[in-house]
Amino acid sequence: MRENKYDDPVFFEKYGQMDRSKLGLAGAGEWEALRELMPEFQGKRVLDLGCGYGWHCAYAAEHRAASVLGIDLSERMLEVARQQHSGPVIEYRRCAIEDIDVPDGSLDVVFSSLAFHYVQDFGVVMDRVWRWLVLGGRFLFSVEHPIFTACGSQDWYRDGEGKILHFPVDHYFEEGERKANFLGENVVKYHRTLTTYLDGLLTRGFRLLRVVEPQPPERMRDLPGMRDELRRPMMLLVSAEKS
Amino acid sequence: MRENKYDDPVFFEKYGQMDRSKLGLAGAGEWEALRELMPEFQGKRVLDLGCGYGWHCAYAAEHRAASVLGIDLSERMLEVARQQHSGPVIEYRRCAIEDIDVPDGSLDVVFSSLAFHYVQDFGVVMDRVWRWLVLGGRFLFSVEHPIFTACGSQDWYRDGEGKILHFPVDHYFEEGERKANFLGENVVKYHRTLTTYLDGLLTRGFRLLRVVEPQPPERMRDLPGMRDELRRPMMLLVSAEKS
Repeated sequence: MRENKYDDPVFFEKYGQMDRSKLGLAGAGEWEALRELMPEFQGKRVLDLGCGYGWHCAYAAEHRAASVLGIDLSERMLEVARQQHSGPVIEYRRCAIEDIDVPDGSLDVVFSSLAFHYVQDFGVVMDRVWRWLVLGGRFLFSVEHPIFTACGSQDWYRDGEGKILHFPVDHYFEEGERKANFLGENVVKYHRTLTTYLDGLLTRGFRLLRVVEPQPPERMRDLPGMRDELRRPMMLLVSAEKS
Repeated sequence: MRENKYDDPVFFEKYGQMDRSKLGLAGAGEWEALRELMPEFQGKRVLDLGCGYGWHCAYAAEHRAASVLGIDLSERMLEVARQQHSGPVIEYRRCAIEDIDVPDGSLDVVFSSLAFHYVQDFGVVMDRVWRWLVLGGRFLFSVEHPIFTACGSQDWYRDGEGKILHFPVDHYFEEGERKANFLGENVVKYHRTLTTYLDGLLTRGFRLLRVVEPQPPERMRDLPGMRDELRRPMMLLVSAEKS
């Protein structure tokens, strides 16, 4: 997330018009599935990597976390977070995911929502999160699904009339940079395989608790394009424990 | 595997011509990755679900398993297994994966190679394997990757000249029957999501040890079509423990 598209005024404006920005957690198709994986927050020290508007920080605070540190590289997003999701236990700090450091064993929960596909080296993230967490600490994150990031374009494959034929997968085992189009703007993301995410956690000693590909909830299936999300996996939710 | 294509003489003949049939384990692109996940066999009671020619049964016996039961629905395959991979601790039995039953807590290792995508209800398999295994017992299997089984055709998407454009994904969250083409013959397989495989194990209490999408090994990359296998994930290897 050192490349910070979210401080580009045009991109920021467009992002602000998305349901997930206006409606918060309820506007995110994966929220029901993610909430089910949320750990107990009461009395916990929480870090949110790529906190954005701070919706999840507020959620942790509402559930009586002892402390919540939300970091993000976008000053614009942190401004909104400070205005709308502040609280006595919440601190927001401008920092890249790659640059944050906290003392070893000082956290109970590390959380991240849809931010790690902006990080080049996920191995470093896993190593650090392992050090930061206490034994029994939780690591919960959502990312774009490796199938969704493989090709790069993140677009459906369509016929001459624009009708969706299928979703294309290519270059799956070639990890690294992808130039994706998000809200009409070019964004750099990093593709990695499912093996890198899951086996990377397992071989570092994490215990996987849950692995979920969320489907759009019933209440959202009549929104434009939402039914098509049953045709491809777009996100991956992973809950792990340092054990 | 109640539908038993492997006793169709034409299909059986064609299958017999594949490298993995003629060369055994070394002819299978995933063997290096799978071997790395193999548990300790010495003194263990092993069940192989869909054992085919018995290559893996022989491997377990060579590594001093106490007993190895290989089951398969194809009488033709079991004939070859009995001729080529017999041994004092190995027993082969004709039986569908859905129909085999063994006493609770009577197994140390349950293994399966590329057979579960022929089974309609994987939930039942997981429930039973849990019961059959001792505490600390291992469940190791390979399956066709959910991305590979989603669309059904299992074919690359090509341009007018037959050049591969990408691999198509569709109907991902619609689990169930797919009519696939394998060796020029129609075969019924069952598609299920990654969530069903992995979260199904986790929510039943299995501990995931490894999750690996094997890539073709260097030694095979010059074989026809093998380099294309870096463009899509075709298989999934899962190692789990009853703990």
